[in-house]
Amino acid sequence: MAKLNLETVRGMRDFMPEEKILRDEVIGKIKKVFESYGFAPLETPVLENIELLKGKGQYGDEALKLVYDFTDKGGRQVGLRYDLTVPLARVVAMNQQLPKPFKRYCIDKVWRYERPQAGRYREFYQCDVDTVGVDSPAADAEVIACANSALKAIGVEKFVFRINSRKLMNELLTDAGVPKNQIVRTLRILDKLDKLSKDEIAKELRAFLSEESTNELLELMKLSGDWYKISKTIKVCGDTQKIIEEFLNYLKSFGIKNFIIDLSLARGLDYYTGFVFEIEAGKEIGSIGSGGRYDTLVEGLIGQKVPATGISLGLERVLCVLKAKKIKTKTKVYVVPIKETAKAIEIAEELRKAGINCDLDLSGRSVGKNLEYASKMEIPFAILVGEQEIKAGKVKLRDMATGSEELLTVEKAISNLKQ
Amino acid sequence: MAKLNLETVRGMRDFMPEEKILRDEVIGKIKKVFESYGFAPLETPVLENIELLKGKGQYGDEALKLVYDFTDKGGRQVGLRYDLTVPLARVVAMNQQLPKPFKRYCIDKVWRYERPQAGRYREFYQCDVDTVGVDSPAADAEVIACANSALKAIGVEKFVFRINSRKLMNELLTDAGVPKNQIVRTLRILDKLDKLSKDEIAKELRAFLSEESTNELLELMKLSGDWYKISKTIKVCGDTQKIIEEFLNYLKSFGIKNFIIDLSLARGLDYYTGFVFEIEAGKEIGSIGSGGRYDTLVEGLIGQKVPATGISLGLERVLCVLKAKKIKTKTKVYVVPIKETAKAIEIAEELRKAGINCDLDLSGRSVGKNLEYASKMEIPFAILVGEQEIKAGKVKLRDMATGSEELLTVEKAISNLKQ
Repeated sequence: MAKLNLETVRGMRDFMPEEKILRDEVIGKIKKVFESYGFAPLETPVLENIELLKGKGQYGDEALKLVYDFTDKGGRQVGLRYDLTVPLARVVAMNQQLPKPFKRYCIDKVWRYERPQAGRYREFYQCDVDTVGVDSPAADAEVIACANSALKAIGVEKFVFRINSRKLMNELLTDAGVPKNQIVRTLRILDKLDKLSKDEIAKELRAFLSEESTNELLELMKLSGDWYKISKTIKVCGDTQKIIEEFLNYLKSFGIKNFIIDLSLARGLDYYTGFVFEIEAGKEIGSIGSGGRYDTLVEGLIGQKVPATGISLGLERVLCVLKAKKIKTKTKVYVVPIKETAKAIEIAEELRKAGINCDLDLSGRSVGKNLEYASKMEIPFAILVGEQEIKAGKVKLRDMATGSEELLTVEKAISNLKQ
Repeated sequence: MAKLNLETVRGMRDFMPEEKILRDEVIGKIKKVFESYGFAPLETPVLENIELLKGKGQYGDEALKLVYDFTDKGGRQVGLRYDLTVPLARVVAMNQQLPKPFKRYCIDKVWRYERPQAGRYREFYQCDVDTVGVDSPAADAEVIACANSALKAIGVEKFVFRINSRKLMNELLTDAGVPKNQIVRTLRILDKLDKLSKDEIAKELRAFLSEESTNELLELMKLSGDWYKISKTIKVCGDTQKIIEEFLNYLKSFGIKNFIIDLSLARGLDYYTGFVFEIEAGKEIGSIGSGGRYDTLVEGLIGQKVPATGISLGLERVLCVLKAKKIKTKTKVYVVPIKETAKAIEIAEELRKAGINCDLDLSGRSVGKNLEYASKMEIPFAILVGEQEIKAGKVKLRDMATGSEELLTVEKAISNLKQ
């Protein structure tokens, strides 16, 4: 027998039941919150054509290297989706008749061809909400409020929204002497502030900016906290000031207090045009989500202006914060036939019809082995079905934690288990 | 601007919200039934190494052509998963410490590089349950019962399980003069009975079998219905007879009556070793699911015998049978601010906290436009928030179907909406 490669594909992994049960539960809660905000589900294929993934105005040069792309059997250039936003933009572009606003959520896998590291995989989940067709900053505030409610609903308590405005940064960078055609490059360097030292950043900036501009930018990067304080130390144009204040008022209406304005937040993707956000869960964990406004992404595809904004939670990052206990099983009771398999099957079917998750030994092993299995699987109850019990028209219900047993009718056992 | 290819990748498609809502609902119900039978969720990556997908003893020659495979950026030969069974076998092989039985379900996408046709896509969903580690036919009966309950739970009423035994067929084919090394080839030809005419099948068989063998096989193919009648017309070895009768008794215990034994059911995949099943939903729709026992699949990977059986529902086929009405929205109420956006946001947040799915206009359009939108989206209720209502400490709740309106406190509106 040739030795097979039984590993998962590099950078990918399996989610075993006890992890998957927890993940599904968390996803279910997030989904419920997303729906409570009027977002509807959309699903797109895992593959996209390369023109969409690598087109100008989508992700930008840095990200392009990370697209997991290949030539398929038909000679087509395709790639696994890099995020959930660009496929959404394609759907909006293909379906221009869609009533606006188009509010969609999507909780699904994305792929990035990064160097696999401990805890970093090439295949992971994003949980996105996006509002397409509203240019009011109220929509930006709403996606933040929705992400805030979703995180609270799953038990994440400590996090803060870092917020900046791409528009404001464009103005400030221009004022600091950055030429227009170097703004994106500059932002991309500033985006590395959490990875590189200030000296390294300064060095990269000095390669194309004056000493004075570089210093001014580094000063700007220090500004974070309350907008009204920040805005006193910088020069902001009236329109930008107005839209930021409007946005802050909307955040207040939504009850959002856990945020700061942070001029050091750049966000590396090309497609952002307005407010950008990042959700920080402390120094150790870092970012658990991000988003922003991308008013020109759809325009780049169909030449028609369609404003849009959205936010994305990284499921793996969020689960890191949660550190929730894995859930070993959703099975409530394990039915153990003592020779009487036919009768045990009938009882198991009764339990299932009553809405109780129930497993059953079908391999004919001993009672001892079966109780050992139920205990290992952390199934809370067992029901024993033997000749004696059948004669008495009853079953034995065993509490696996205490070991206590009761002889009950099936109906009584069901009502006890349902409590 | 260069014209972009905005199509989905060939053979793939988007699920728009009104379709996705329905799909999620159906998946949710299936999942609940799978869990009620003690199956636990498992998730594997979308990509698998080519050795696993194309190894001997997995799918067989016919299927191999359909694996959506490619060389990735790192020079790795990989492929999108062809089904959910072989990845499960890999997980079992990689995790030999898993307590047995390992009962897992998986509802996820698979890919086949078929010629795209109307209604046939290269990317589609399967819903699988599998029991690994039990060789009793009780486990075969259980996966059938579980599929039966799942189909009933989502409203599929008319279907029948066609059942055959690969072991029985091996014996009958041998008796009919088929050489051992031609059995798989013969079964693969017989598997095309629903696609080719009898004459075409006969011609293919005559290429390597005698006229007598060919005729005997075609006679066998006519046998379907009640096992006790069939078994009188064929020669069955004692062990095989015993295991089939045992299996039929288990089906009875599970309350399964909608089945026939059908000797014309072959199942094309190489990995089946025992009972094979197909779920038929009438002539027009055809098969909506299939499965069987594959006792040697894991053995082929690790050289250790691990019995296994499973069944798979084709979600798209099942939805075809259901013909269920699409669900346009899960939003219960649309909040319309009449200038009072801040107050409307607060009310929307109250509704959401009360568990009511609620959308809200943030674009500042007119009341008329907003009601038109709510009506187009089929949102059943609207809440109007204007200066007058706020002064009265109330909101106007509008039934979108009848147009009737009531002035109510937010609390009262919530309790009305929750009924």
